[in-house]
Amino acid sequence: MTAPMPQPEIVHVALGDRAYDILIGRHVLDAAGARLGALGARAAALVTDETVSGLHADAVASRLERAGLRGVRVTVPPGEGSKAMPQLERVLNELLEGRIERGDIVVALGGGVVGDLAGFAAATLRRGVRLVQIPTTLLAQVDSSVGGKTGINAPAGKNLIGAFHQPSLVLADTALLDTLPARELRAGYAEVVKYGLIDDPAFFSWCEENGAAVLAGGDVRDHAVAVSCRAKAAVVVEDEREEGRRALLNLGHTFGHALERIVGYDGTRLVHGEAVAIGLALAFGFSAAMGLCDRDEAERVARHLASLGLPTRLADVPGGFGSPEAILDAMAQDKKVKAGRLTFILARGIGRSFVAEGVPAEEVLSFLRDAERA
Amino acid sequence: MTAPMPQPEIVHVALGDRAYDILIGRHVLDAAGARLGALGARAAALVTDETVSGLHADAVASRLERAGLRGVRVTVPPGEGSKAMPQLERVLNELLEGRIERGDIVVALGGGVVGDLAGFAAATLRRGVRLVQIPTTLLAQVDSSVGGKTGINAPAGKNLIGAFHQPSLVLADTALLDTLPARELRAGYAEVVKYGLIDDPAFFSWCEENGAAVLAGGDVRDHAVAVSCRAKAAVVVEDEREEGRRALLNLGHTFGHALERIVGYDGTRLVHGEAVAIGLALAFGFSAAMGLCDRDEAERVARHLASLGLPTRLADVPGGFGSPEAILDAMAQDKKVKAGRLTFILARGIGRSFVAEGVPAEEVLSFLRDAERA
Repeated sequence: MTAPMPQPEIVHVALGDRAYDILIGRHVLDAAGARLGALGARAAALVTDETVSGLHADAVASRLERAGLRGVRVTVPPGEGSKAMPQLERVLNELLEGRIERGDIVVALGGGVVGDLAGFAAATLRRGVRLVQIPTTLLAQVDSSVGGKTGINAPAGKNLIGAFHQPSLVLADTALLDTLPARELRAGYAEVVKYGLIDDPAFFSWCEENGAAVLAGGDVRDHAVAVSCRAKAAVVVEDEREEGRRALLNLGHTFGHALERIVGYDGTRLVHGEAVAIGLALAFGFSAAMGLCDRDEAERVARHLASLGLPTRLADVPGGFGSPEAILDAMAQDKKVKAGRLTFILARGIGRSFVAEGVPAEEVLSFLRDAERA
Repeated sequence: MTAPMPQPEIVHVALGDRAYDILIGRHVLDAAGARLGALGARAAALVTDETVSGLHADAVASRLERAGLRGVRVTVPPGEGSKAMPQLERVLNELLEGRIERGDIVVALGGGVVGDLAGFAAATLRRGVRLVQIPTTLLAQVDSSVGGKTGINAPAGKNLIGAFHQPSLVLADTALLDTLPARELRAGYAEVVKYGLIDDPAFFSWCEENGAAVLAGGDVRDHAVAVSCRAKAAVVVEDEREEGRRALLNLGHTFGHALERIVGYDGTRLVHGEAVAIGLALAFGFSAAMGLCDRDEAERVARHLASLGLPTRLADVPGGFGSPEAILDAMAQDKKVKAGRLTFILARGIGRSFVAEGVPAEEVLSFLRDAERA
């Protein structure tokens, strides 16, 4: 079977002296040697987790070796628990023991956890070395590998310690998604839909027609990844450090993060993308409840997500979500709360999202009480 | 005693959207409230060490409080041991518990250790909050508080984990130096002399005439701090991330770091500035041995440093320095070594320093064997 390799889609992230390319398509990893070799490093450190290591690390390592790069490999346990200070320290010390120098490269091979952890290690090793992202999950390909946010969790909350550190290259090989469990794929799809909901109603319609095919694989999936990367790149170029418009990417995340906190970040109950799916449905439900958006539009959002097997209601949280008060409490510990007022991303309709500051806590509570019974 | 307050000297560091002022002079801390208040934060976290806390923290804290800033205080043990992962983690967690938000400020009140540690915490808290440096040692006022290098040590070496994070303001209150032990003051003076040796021969001559008075205090000391800050700012503006010219600031540091490593960073034997003093004398001695620089010039450098009580010879290292081979080994573990060749800052004369790449290890060893007998 020697199918012709399709041309990869290239999204350029135009950030001046921090500009970089995202290569998207099946088997773009075949270009890893040439692309990384062109960065002019002497060594490349592959940071991955135990799950991904068994699937893809050898293939990537041999490509880098053939390109003349000395190899170092650092493997962390899978799961959110690795996004913490002890693993960061371990990764940094192993990179130093592996003599990764200022001109060398850290390659993050994995999902969001590996990308965030390895990215932060690259940002702080010798005050910053270059980073290449090779995302292996749909969520990482369409969201976390692009845009330069890196970091770890703290006892006080998620992603509270980190750095903005743009990659020098992103290789989104959609063939890697073939080994992804269906649940992970579905969860990542919530972030794809998000781009339609933010400002691209035509893409949301496309998702309604093609969502099932995206999960099944093939060219349609590649298109979904490319549109998502292009959307994210455009936002990041406009507002790299989230001083304004970039906050729109948090659509669905205020509710979503609160639910993740409530289940104790227990991925057996709720993975990030699932929390975002419920969060997207709630953000539109809340927008409708506040009279900002047609109820039909909100229902259309929930219907599409649910049609692909994603959770959309509070009642869908396995093991329960506590209470509306518990959700508000969880939000209050988030960085998005000031003096009893919350910052939300709300919508005037599909593709018409906006940053809403100063939303009164009582209104949120009242909506959640209704949503609890839905 | 109400002496008229002299106008502070202001050095502007012109780094575009990262530009900032350095205020230099006796009692510039009186401007802390107004200057920090103008940054538009709601809270300011004072990070300091136990020694400095007892001397200056209350005075600074009350000024910030009067300016309407909510206060948080984090105190670490004094000494190089605090520039490590456990203290970084503790500082970050205390800043988070103290609800320091993205728009707030971290104030580093102390010497180089506090500045580097608090600066790195500021660089990584919520992916970066603003930093104000209030250096309390001569070394920090003329060197480490300016230029944005922050970080901690790793088992593999000093300053190997960190970030470039420019401060938003530096307040170099020379009155704070009145409480500094004579040994610390003398050690910091080595970094002052360094600026003359790099590219300002007239300033070195001025140091020869005024060095003793700088250590004694008064206007002459303020002038030395101002000239040093201006020199450092000029280099940083030209090469913020040390891709070229900024490496000149490492004059004396290749030998110096090796000696610090050999004594196990034991400050009772050798503090950083003392190691730099020996390193400066050795760098000029080595330049003379290589026929780059007149032997008279090298002797003039050593004579001036020694005249103020600074160590200048290998024999001056308390407890001994091991052997020439041990020094070379210590250098080899530094980041400045590639394939048996070293990068040094050498000089063609006083004020004529340059970056010398590819210096053969044997030449260093042969020079050190001679220096051992000196």
